[in-house]
Parts: sequence; C-alpha cells; structure tokens
Amino acid sequence: MSFYPPRRTLMGPGPSDVYPRVSEALSRPTIGHLDPEFIRLMDEIKGLLQYAFQTDNALTLPVSAPGSAGMETCFVNLFEPGDQVIVLQNGVFGGRMQENVTRLGGQAIVAKTPWGRAVDLEQAESTIKQHPEAKAVAFVHAETSTGAMSDATALCNMASSAGMLSIVDTVTGLGGIEVAVDKWGADAVYSGTQKCLSCVPGLSPVTFSPRSQKVISSRNTPVQSWFLDLNLVMAYWGEGTQRAYHHTAPVNALYALHEALTMLKEEGLQASWQRHSDNHQALKAGLNAMGLELIVPAESRLPQLNAVAVPESVDEARVRQQLLAEFNLEIGAGLGELAGRVWRIGLMGCSSNPTNVRTCLAALEHCLLSQGVKLEAGAAVAAASAHYGH
Amino acid sequence: MSFYPPRRTLMGPGPSDVYPRVSEALSRPTIGHLDPEFIRLMDEIKGLLQYAFQTDNALTLPVSAPGSAGMETCFVNLFEPGDQVIVLQNGVFGGRMQENVTRLGGQAIVAKTPWGRAVDLEQAESTIKQHPEAKAVAFVHAETSTGAMSDATALCNMASSAGMLSIVDTVTGLGGIEVAVDKWGADAVYSGTQKCLSCVPGLSPVTFSPRSQKVISSRNTPVQSWFLDLNLVMAYWGEGTQRAYHHTAPVNALYALHEALTMLKEEGLQASWQRHSDNHQALKAGLNAMGLELIVPAESRLPQLNAVAVPESVDEARVRQQLLAEFNLEIGAGLGELAGRVWRIGLMGCSSNPTNVRTCLAALEHCLLSQGVKLEAGAAVAAASAHYGH
Repeated sequence: MSFYPPRRTLMGPGPSDVYPRVSEALSRPTIGHLDPEFIRLMDEIKGLLQYAFQTDNALTLPVSAPGSAGMETCFVNLFEPGDQVIVLQNGVFGGRMQENVTRLGGQAIVAKTPWGRAVDLEQAESTIKQHPEAKAVAFVHAETSTGAMSDATALCNMASSAGMLSIVDTVTGLGGIEVAVDKWGADAVYSGTQKCLSCVPGLSPVTFSPRSQKVISSRNTPVQSWFLDLNLVMAYWGEGTQRAYHHTAPVNALYALHEALTMLKEEGLQASWQRHSDNHQALKAGLNAMGLELIVPAESRLPQLNAVAVPESVDEARVRQQLLAEFNLEIGAGLGELAGRVWRIGLMGCSSNPTNVRTCLAALEHCLLSQGVKLEAGAAVAAASAHYGH
Repeated sequence: MSFYPPRRTLMGPGPSDVYPRVSEALSRPTIGHLDPEFIRLMDEIKGLLQYAFQTDNALTLPVSAPGSAGMETCFVNLFEPGDQVIVLQNGVFGGRMQENVTRLGGQAIVAKTPWGRAVDLEQAESTIKQHPEAKAVAFVHAETSTGAMSDATALCNMASSAGMLSIVDTVTGLGGIEVAVDKWGADAVYSGTQKCLSCVPGLSPVTFSPRSQKVISSRNTPVQSWFLDLNLVMAYWGEGTQRAYHHTAPVNALYALHEALTMLKEEGLQASWQRHSDNHQALKAGLNAMGLELIVPAESRLPQLNAVAVPESVDEARVRQQLLAEFNLEIGAGLGELAGRVWRIGLMGCSSNPTNVRTCLAALEHCLLSQGVKLEAGAAVAAASAHYGH
C-alpha cells in the first residue's frame, strides 16, 4: 500500500519544511547523469553553491549523501594515517569529527568547550600553540546539538596563522547566518540541504580552498573511501563538457537543490539572514513571556536553532508527543548530554516565518498548561506579535 | 532561473524512466527522520526489500547513498586490514570491488574472466582452492558494464563450501531477473534503485546474512567509515520503536523507494522478470534484423542490459548524440575496455516495455541509415512486433 505521510510543520533541528517549489522540482522527469543538460545543471549548481558559500573555490559541489558524508568527505580526503588534527569540540558534531579523525588513522587532539557555548577562543589559541605539528583545526560553526554559533573568522585565522588547515562544519548555518568561506579563509567547509536551504535531506554541499585542493591531489596514500575520493569525484564534477562516470548522481535531489539555491539567490543572502534573525527574536520574546529560557548566551545564539531549557516540573517527551499528536508540529529533543534537558526549536529556511513562530508558541503554551505549568494564557503569542510590530 | 529538464526516454544503463507513481511519491510532504510515521515507513521498506531480495535477513535496508556506497558498505563492514578477498572480475564493477578491498587495507586476489562473459566457474573453483585463507569471494551477478549475468547460485555455493563469505553485486539485477539471496546463501548483497526498480537514483538497498551480521558485530577494528558503519546505522534502522539518530535519512527518496517496491510487489517478481525477458527477446529480434549483435552469449545475457557491438563503419558517439537530439532517447556508451565498441541499451523497470523497444529500434535504424549503413527499412520494428505476436 502506498505511504501517505502526515502533513507536519517541521520545527525541529532539520529537516525543515520544504518549499513547494522545491518539492515540485524534485518530481521533474529524471534524465541521465551524463546528459548534456544535466552537466549544465551541475555547473549551475556549482555556481549557486559558490554564491551561498561566498567563495570562488573551484572545488565546490554537493556530495551525493547526507551531511555526515560531507563531514567524512572533508576528513578522509585531507588527512592520512598519522596526521594530527585539533578538534575544538562543543557538542555532538565535534564528537563526530573526532571519530572521523580516529577512524582514518589520524590523531585527534580534542579541546572541549562546555555544551551550549561558542568554542572558547583562548583555549583554541593555546591548544594550537601547544600542538604546532598538527595539520589542521576542525570546529563546528553552527552546532545543531546546542544552538551555539562559533567565531569562524577568528578560528580560521588562528589556523592559517599557525600554518594549519581549517575544517568548518556549517550544516545548520548555510543560508541562515553569514557563511563567508573566502573571507574566513576556511579550507574545507561542509553543509546540509535539509536545514536553512529548505531542500530535502540527502545531499551535502562542500567547498575546498585551492590550498586544500592541493593537499588532496598530492596525497601519499589513497583516500580510504572510493565513493568519497574527490580525486575521482572531480572527473565527474570538474570542468569542461566531458565528464567521466564515477557514481550515479542523485539526479532528482539535485533538481531540488538547484531550485532551493535559486530561491536563496532570489531572496538574497542578507535578506535571508535578516529573516532568520527576526523570527528568532520573535520566538525568543514569546518563549521568555512563558518563562522559558534559551541555553545559549545571546551573543552566540544561532537564530535558526533555539535550544530551550525544559522546566524542572515538565515531562519533555510528553510535550513533544503532544505537539506532534495534536498540532502535527515537530520540535526536536536534546542530543547527547542535553538529552531530556532541552527542546530544540528550529526556524530554518521555509520554516522560519511568523506563522510558524506563533503556531509553535501557542501550541507549546497549550502543552505546558496541560501539564499544570502556571502561565499567562496568550502572553507568548502577544509578545511575538509585539516584536513583529503588528 | 529554475531548471526544467528535457523529457527523455531513458534506455541507457540507468537511471531508467521513473514510474509516475514514484515521482509523485517523491514530492509528498517531508516529515522528520525520527517521526513515528517515518519509523513505520522504514519498517515497511525493510519488509518490501526482503520480498524483492527474497530473504529473511534482518539486516536489510537501503543505504542513504548511491550503489557505489552500497558496495563500499559491504566491503568496509565485513573486512579488516589484512583480510584476503577473492574478486572474480569480468567488468568495470569487479574492478571497483578490487579498489574497495585495497583501500581498506585488505588484499584482493583477482581472477579475471573476459569482459562480456559470465564469471568462469572452473577458474573460480581453482582460485578458491588455491587461496583457502581468503575470507570471502566477491563477484558481480549483473555486470552493468557488459550485460553479462553470472551464476550466483554456483558461486555462493563454492564460497560457503570453502567456509568463505560471498559478496554479490546485483545493482542492475534486482527486480529484472531472479535475485534469491537466501536460496543462493549469499552473505552480503547490494543493489541500486535507479535500474529495474525504476526509482530515482541515490539509494542502495543492501542485505546481510546472519553469518555476515555476526562478522560485522564482532570486528577487531572499527569500520573505517563512520557514515557507513552498520553497527551505528542499525541503531537507526534496527528493531523496535525507539531509534537513535545516526544521520538524517533522505526522507523523500525513501518515499519513492517505498512506492517503487510496492509496485514491484503488485506486479509480482515472476511477472516482472517475465516482462524483462519478453522485451529483451523482442529487442534482440529487432537488432538482429538490423544486422546488429549482442556481445554476450545467449545463456548469460542480462535481459535488462543489452550490450550491442557497434558495426565497424559506424561512429558510435554520433549515433548516441543523434538519438538524444532527434528522439530524446538516451542509450549508454561502452565503459572501460568496451568504450567505443558497444552501445548499452537498457530495458529496465518502467523502461522495459514494447513501446520503448519499438521506439529504440526505429530511432536506431534511422541513425544507422543516416550513416550510410545498408538496412531493410522497417525490418527491425517488424521483427520485434512479430515477437510480441501483434
């Protein structure tokens, strides 16, 4: 029997709601992965990704698999067994970076910042100083597990000053906050499609600086993964009209990505960031009016991912289940050490809009009231509306 | 600007034409990858894949990336550095298997059969005898690069008799010819979605026997790939209603796969194989009527992938370009050592139907005539129609 999904409002840590234009693009007729028209599409996607990433990097493409494969693409291509990599960890995804380094036979030097905080710059500086032999510094720009934003400019600068490469995870960042790969001087950056791009999940945009591209092409050992080996992938995603078959690209998902990136360009990067910021401020005003607090300090909050502390008396899982059952509204649970302690409310891409903010606040208020939390009914939505000025 | 693909008829080595029901399913509303409804979908997909693979294997799931990642999933999970793997190679994809073994630090023992032939059983037997210390035998059941089908029953038997695991590539096989994982006694089998399932590209169904599942769970070293590590993936794709986040599943692609597998079940495996066989016979009759020959001997031809020898006097690339430009019809070029020497005509899934057979024959006839080949005009389509009996 065919599967008909319920119609949810997606306000978790991703996937976010998909733009109708993107869904429609997804179902356009499949063509071959070596069709001249498809090669043209690939070139356009490359250009649109360069716009989104704000980079001139030639090696910019979507990996044919989700964000964790994008992460792995960066690590397995840039590093060889024995390499030392400094991992500045402040959440789940920094932990995954460490796993990547270890599994490829590298040595991860881990410096931890408490979860919910931006990566500590002084600690980063001193770790880099203590390990001049390290090949790279890796960190998460937008930590999806906590909602913390780290200072990519400062951290990439530290890395390059020390002669090290910088690896940046901005899976949740791209399209929602400033991502400026060339300005940062970042060497390898990966993202996802199902967050602030409001495209379907399954692809991972990546970009590599000329410096890191050179590292990849002059390795001593082959990349451990055949599928992710960029030296092979580039024969397919590279320049010119003659492309060699490497793997069969996920053709329809790439139609969707092209459409989502086209929409981002139509809106403009600045306008998109501003929209994400506005809706975040409105949500925050509403949450505060209910007595709820964000766990990340104001200066390093991701507007698109709001980690909310669960009040002591509240059964957090019951709230999420009730939101889903009664409002068809998905918000996220905590991950790792924040499991059971926070909700993660996403305002990403298409999902970042005033209707979603108000709906989420009203629904959350209803659930908290039903668990006996004392609230001034209606105050949350009113506070959000006041922020919007109407 | 939005990208609108041309409407092609896909008769290459995959992707094949996508069923309209599958395209429609693809664009259904995205839900979360941990949504209870999505977990239910995952369970249904598992059951449908077990039907398609004809297996009771609990470890049966679609890898969230294309077929080459499915291949890599099998190799990196089952083998550790130092392991010996016998690779019975008769085309491009056997070569890729060898690459996989080498890159994970294993030792590939390669026995080659000429391209366009089924894997040589006597040679396989003697290679296995000469290398009793090998851990596994790997081969391609349905070689997409040549159109040759190998005897999976015999080869899996040889492997298990020698106490070795068997790894089977049937990317092009599933849904088009008999794939009987349990009857074969195969230990790890991978496939693709964009061939005889007529789903979009981007996923790779895999299945593992209880024996190979045990090998994976009792490894001495971690799997080199975090993304493909089945010990982690199973926390998400495993049993029960509580699933741990591993990566964000390609939600919409899985809707499409569910729909394609549902259609396969509605048609029935036997009926689908029969259809692929019928259309192959009709195509073959038409090709022969044009004086064209298939390169694979009759007893080991894949009905879904017809490798046709290019006549001496003909510019093969010009024919493909003309088919695309004038008929919006895609057929495939040769790969590897068959590049320039064959066309690959796919009759896969949705694309395996009498209209496509006749269209392809008529179009090909036109192109050959335009290159001065002497033909009896109309004979090819007539021969195909005679095969259909009307």
